[in-house]
Amino acid sequence: MIKNLHSGPRILMGPGPSNVSSQVLKEMAQPLIGHMDPQFIEMMDEVKDMVRHVFLTNNPLTFVIPGTGSAGMECAFVNLIEPGDQVLVCVNGAFGNRMCEIALRCDAKLKRLDVPWGQPVAPTQVANALQNFTPKIVAIVHAETSTGVLQPLEEISRIVHKAGALFLVDAVTSLGGCELKIDEWGIDICYSATQKCLSAPPGLSPISFSPAAESAINTRKSRIQSWYLDVSLIQKYWDGKKRAYHHTAPISMIYAIHRALKIVLEEGLETRINRHHNNYLSLKTGLEAMGFEYIIAHPYRLPVLNTIKIPDGLDDDKTRMRLLNEYNIEIGGGLGDFAGKIWRIGIMGESCSPDYIKALLSALKKILSQG
Amino acid sequence: MIKNLHSGPRILMGPGPSNVSSQVLKEMAQPLIGHMDPQFIEMMDEVKDMVRHVFLTNNPLTFVIPGTGSAGMECAFVNLIEPGDQVLVCVNGAFGNRMCEIALRCDAKLKRLDVPWGQPVAPTQVANALQNFTPKIVAIVHAETSTGVLQPLEEISRIVHKAGALFLVDAVTSLGGCELKIDEWGIDICYSATQKCLSAPPGLSPISFSPAAESAINTRKSRIQSWYLDVSLIQKYWDGKKRAYHHTAPISMIYAIHRALKIVLEEGLETRINRHHNNYLSLKTGLEAMGFEYIIAHPYRLPVLNTIKIPDGLDDDKTRMRLLNEYNIEIGGGLGDFAGKIWRIGIMGESCSPDYIKALLSALKKILSQG
Repeated sequence: MIKNLHSGPRILMGPGPSNVSSQVLKEMAQPLIGHMDPQFIEMMDEVKDMVRHVFLTNNPLTFVIPGTGSAGMECAFVNLIEPGDQVLVCVNGAFGNRMCEIALRCDAKLKRLDVPWGQPVAPTQVANALQNFTPKIVAIVHAETSTGVLQPLEEISRIVHKAGALFLVDAVTSLGGCELKIDEWGIDICYSATQKCLSAPPGLSPISFSPAAESAINTRKSRIQSWYLDVSLIQKYWDGKKRAYHHTAPISMIYAIHRALKIVLEEGLETRINRHHNNYLSLKTGLEAMGFEYIIAHPYRLPVLNTIKIPDGLDDDKTRMRLLNEYNIEIGGGLGDFAGKIWRIGIMGESCSPDYIKALLSALKKILSQG
Repeated sequence: MIKNLHSGPRILMGPGPSNVSSQVLKEMAQPLIGHMDPQFIEMMDEVKDMVRHVFLTNNPLTFVIPGTGSAGMECAFVNLIEPGDQVLVCVNGAFGNRMCEIALRCDAKLKRLDVPWGQPVAPTQVANALQNFTPKIVAIVHAETSTGVLQPLEEISRIVHKAGALFLVDAVTSLGGCELKIDEWGIDICYSATQKCLSAPPGLSPISFSPAAESAINTRKSRIQSWYLDVSLIQKYWDGKKRAYHHTAPISMIYAIHRALKIVLEEGLETRINRHHNNYLSLKTGLEAMGFEYIIAHPYRLPVLNTIKIPDGLDDDKTRMRLLNEYNIEIGGGLGDFAGKIWRIGIMGESCSPDYIKALLSALKKILSQG
């Protein structure tokens, strides 16, 4: 499986993209059909259905937008926020920060709830932040890819709705690898990405809006600032008997996510989440046996993205380059506050495999033993 | 080559996507590498170089953005326009209209220069529109995919620059199939798409900004309203020695455009443009022999997208569905003002082949003879 060749296939154990199965790659390479072809429209319908299944939602307004996870984030904000709308963003990592950036570009009246990087946001902190502030939206990241925190959502969701706000959740890194229940947990706006636990190539973002979010979009007074990400236009292409052209769908990427979602549902969501958890346990055992320390405490540790301290005296870049060049294994470095201090080891989707974990542990062992 | 099977490969002779070569499909299906992998960064550098070659430009600010051609359009406008900026948009089809939509969402002070659908914009009309109006940008579509007009640009470019404005050109359907010279013609902002004459799958948009456009972006006072399409952030990922993560690049799509651009340059731009012209001549001969009439007069006729009147008494939808279901050939219907009145027959990139033209003409002949 592992080739000591620069040109060999990479084992992708960073923060994404994850490895993509040969079935998905083969499907993606099928000859193209048109974006208005009845066969393609049928495929889009199946994709919508499958996205609803993995999101565990019945939301009618659910589809896949033609951009990466960050486009999903922007889509979520630009459709909901009008200039001057109040927004509370919980920030405990790089992607919470990115939400603030985007909210400001929508001219939101932004309140940040800042929590130290690596810590989860506590329900009481959200409740306190909502004491003298009545936002239209409260936004939070479910799985912070920059820190490895898995954020509990249910209690916060209740607090958010009690305050009359809509609940916006970034599920880029959790969907398909961690428990996520849009309807049961009362999430109003949720987006993800294809290149993490769904194991399709990057480039698309599954997104879903609750009826309450949909109604907030339909009753807004100002224009949506993005034409490309305007869900009312995208919906006319994804829904209804007669489809209206908006953009030219990324056909091959839709082939890929179609097959990837099928694989997820064939495995079964629960089985898949258990697989991620079990592989996390064996990775953890191996890493801790070698003396590595996790930076996130249980139960807030994200199993699909393991964040560990770089041991003193070990060169970050050099070690990761050795892993890549000598072993064809990619792991991720730290972002922002954590740059140079941590590694991020992803076990997502196809990359979540005992063989890959063994390969990584053995490579790390060799490199460490050579000083 | 043609299979009378519903599931057979389609011959894509609509307004795009065009057929994609097996080499590109094969390249796209290669195993993924990371978006910060040195091998991938090298590939990005080659893509940038090749995009400059096909655009015939030396513009440093040139890359590929992670969205379709419409994302390219939005990227062009949101980066240049600040609220209240004056913009002149020439409108003679659906994509000029779309430019207006987007300019308005940037809070531009918009002036439309409306010309009847199917006619080119005359330089004198632009000069007149600029008499009492000093816009920051004049925008125009080079190849109007909704009408089949090829817009001459050189004289208008001189008028635009004389008026002190930047010249923004939509080259979605022309790049790689029609003559287009960014530097020689003085185009300041130009975007295209992958699924037309470049014959890669849809999903990316090559884009280029002149130094003057770059300086206008760098000296703007307000935030760019899109984070996802902010070229100053995208540039930090595409340029420089140390790359900064912005979005997770659509790896497989970049593989595809890398190979597609290589094919374009190996054929040679001039040879490729001649090939499109020669195939246009034989398609035209065949169509006219059957009594079809073009709606666009020479020399404004776009050779890569042939727009013809639907003969009286022939059912638009039914005929196109027969072509699709019985012959696996896709052609396009009309948009907007032209819906139900015209067909749009694309011969772009891989779809620009004598065999495909023969197949289409023979299928049309059979359908027409059956009434």
